Amino acid sequence: MAMFVAMNRFRVIKEEAGAFEERWIGRDSQLHKVPGFVTFSLLKGPEREDHILYASHTIWRSPQDFEAWTQSEAFRTAHGGSGSSKPLTLGHPEFEGFEAVGGAERGEQPA
Amino acid sequence: MAMFVAMNRFRVIKEEAGAFEERWIGRDSQLHKVPGFVTFSLLKGPEREDHILYASHTIWRSPQDFEAWTQSEAFRTAHGGSGSSKPLTLGHPEFEGFEAVGGAERGEQPA
Repeated sequence: MAMFVAMNRFRVIKEEAGAFEERWIGRDSQLHKVPGFVTFSLLKGPEREDHILYASHTIWRSPQDFEAWTQSEAFRTAHGGSGSSKPLTLGHPEFEGFEAVGGAERGEQPA
Repeated sequence: MAMFVAMNRFRVIKEEAGAFEERWIGRDSQLHKVPGFVTFSLLKGPEREDHILYASHTIWRSPQDFEAWTQSEAFRTAHGGSGSSKPLTLGHPEFEGFEAVGGAERGEQPA
């Protein structure tokens, strides 16, 4: 089962959580047309001392599909500025890429 | 789109990565029978100075389904010792739970 998870972790300023969610939910990433794209979720994680952890969580068919997208015109367009310069996060997002090495689905015995 | 992602992050000692993967892939978690379970993946992430980041990544239909599982007999059985006491990780795993606040799937316009 090949699968690649691309995760960007954002430390979002608590008062800006609503604006952060809107920015993501409102954008048209064009991802749904990209070869190898499986699913995207914006995830809201634990609240910590001075921020809320959010993660953009994208599943790809393979690391190669993800790589190809990061080098595409569609990627540059999707990351070409949000129309707002007010900082909503503490620092930059932290990227983590993961490859699936095993798994199981509903109703299925683990491999 | 309700969805809950339960993630445990492990800092795995580099030399023990093979043993760590085997321990996970070989176990019978019984998860596939649990109400609200959607999918489980063992994810291998970036290699860092003294460890490799792994994440156990489980998708649930809702936070309530996840909570119910953590209080079940099946959970206690699944976490009842691995048959080996050799440490494969640096410290304890770090748990993070996430709720989906937006998303899109292949071939679908974002909501």
